[in-house]
Amino acid sequence: MSPSREEKVAEYFNCSIRERAVFEAGIKLAAVYHQFIGTPISASNAESLERAIEEGVKVQPFVEDVKVSVDRSRLREKKNEYDYQSLTGEMLDVLVKIKIKNIRVTSRMRYIKDVRYPLMYVEEISED
Amino acid sequence: MSPSREEKVAEYFNCSIRERAVFEAGIKLAAVYHQFIGTPISASNAESLERAIEEGVKVQPFVEDVKVSVDRSRLREKKNEYDYQSLTGEMLDVLVKIKIKNIRVTSRMRYIKDVRYPLMYVEEISED
Amino acid sequence: MSPSREEKVAEYFNCSIRERAVFEAGIKLAAVYHQFIGTPISASNAESLERAIEEGVKVQPFVEDVKVSVDRSRLREKKNEYDYQSLTGEMLDVLVKIKIKNIRVTSRMRYIKDVRYPLMYVEEISED
Amino acid sequence: MSPSREEKVAEYFNCSIRERAVFEAGIKLAAVYHQFIGTPISASNAESLERAIEEGVKVQPFVEDVKVSVDRSRLREKKNEYDYQSLTGEMLDVLVKIKIKNIRVTSRMRYIKDVRYPLMYVEEISED
Repeated sequence: MSPSREEKVAEYFNCSIRERAVFEAGIKLAAVYHQFIGTPISASNAESLERAIEEGVKVQPFVEDVKVSVDRSRLREKKNEYDYQSLTGEMLDVLVKIKIKNIRVTSRMRYIKDVRYPLMYVEEISED
Repeated sequence: MSPSREEKVAEYFNCSIRERAVFEAGIKLAAVYHQFIGTPISASNAESLERAIEEGVKVQPFVEDVKVSVDRSRLREKKNEYDYQSLTGEMLDVLVKIKIKNIRVTSRMRYIKDVRYPLMYVEEISED
Repeated sequence: MSPSREEKVAEYFNCSIRERAVFEAGIKLAAVYHQFIGTPISASNAESLERAIEEGVKVQPFVEDVKVSVDRSRLREKKNEYDYQSLTGEMLDVLVKIKIKNIRVTSRMRYIKDVRYPLMYVEEISED
Repeated sequence: MSPSREEKVAEYFNCSIRERAVFEAGIKLAAVYHQFIGTPISASNAESLERAIEEGVKVQPFVEDVKVSVDRSRLREKKNEYDYQSLTGEMLDVLVKIKIKNIRVTSRMRYIKDVRYPLMYVEEISED
């Protein structure tokens, strides 16, 4: 039997499953940031954008769960043609859970006031 | 009475309303292309992405209507972790209608086989 | 003789050359904004990014000239690992000149304080 | 003495330095992909884009080295207005080295023919 696509891919990785899971978590968070920052946003389309970002993360490999929320307090209601903004890292809170074999990684991106930075970090790694 | 935000903006334009409407149409189509190309996509999230792109266009100035469709025949069903693709210009058909005062512009982006190119063009300009 | 690629493309446009030139200007400005907003930037890489954006505009159709500048006063010198920012519309000043046949369009995107908005507008249209 | 910005950031990570270094590698590769895919490219601007992507990676935290190359065999010389393409994952080869304390991670993104996929993977992890 020929090796599956996933077996072929696995051969490129020179690290543990645990390290690979963390690597995949970093990929997913940065993908959200760099793909969607700059998207036009107002109170009226925040929810459809949240759902589309979540769905776009879910189609990628090893994603067990994802939750995206845009901070509504930073958005204006549309009162004239120019009442919309561009999505920024300050507005985003993204939670991504990766699962590869028996490893689960919980990772997150959110704006940390204390360092004035939309930080991507590893909240937890667990093994079954 | 102080000038509105839109009156202030209008002063920067040295062209007719008709030309401005065409300019705005070009902006909207290129925004879709350059914001969303590269987004992870498969048969499962195509619809949520279409709606989010449409909503993101609608919050911008002078958009009367917008219709986005992703060519399903180019998408794979997810059978393994790597069965997803990145959104390309070949997959997209985007129709944007701009209205400023009495001018309507219908513009479109779609892949034209004959020139192997996702072309953005002006389908129609009409005046009430 | 078979029609050239440009002749084939021209047939899709239902507008004047003048209107098409304005449409192309809108496309170029929005392409810069939505492609590059979010790019990591600090004082050290601002110039290479400016040049790359300019070169990326120049390869597109009908571009006669382009000038991109990033507002250095908004950038931090790198003193620690987190001293960089993401490119925003507030930092950008982009001038694009389009030429189709005898028509020249000068268009611009820059942050307008008065309306708190990175505005894209048509500065001038001229005919030879 | 108050904690530095980097000490504050470190507290958010619930993982080893080694895992964090791998996480940062994933972030950098995905940032390149999702920021720059879709950029207009031809033989004439490939080099300036390569340099700008490299410089944009270098300003991010913990990057020791980065090398970006665009596959010239996939690019067309500009013979008419439409002879340019959009950057795709198939064209890119990106090598990123991360260093945190005594840990070095070498990571890479390149198109793997065998799986028809621009794969991001961990080539090597080493400790001083």
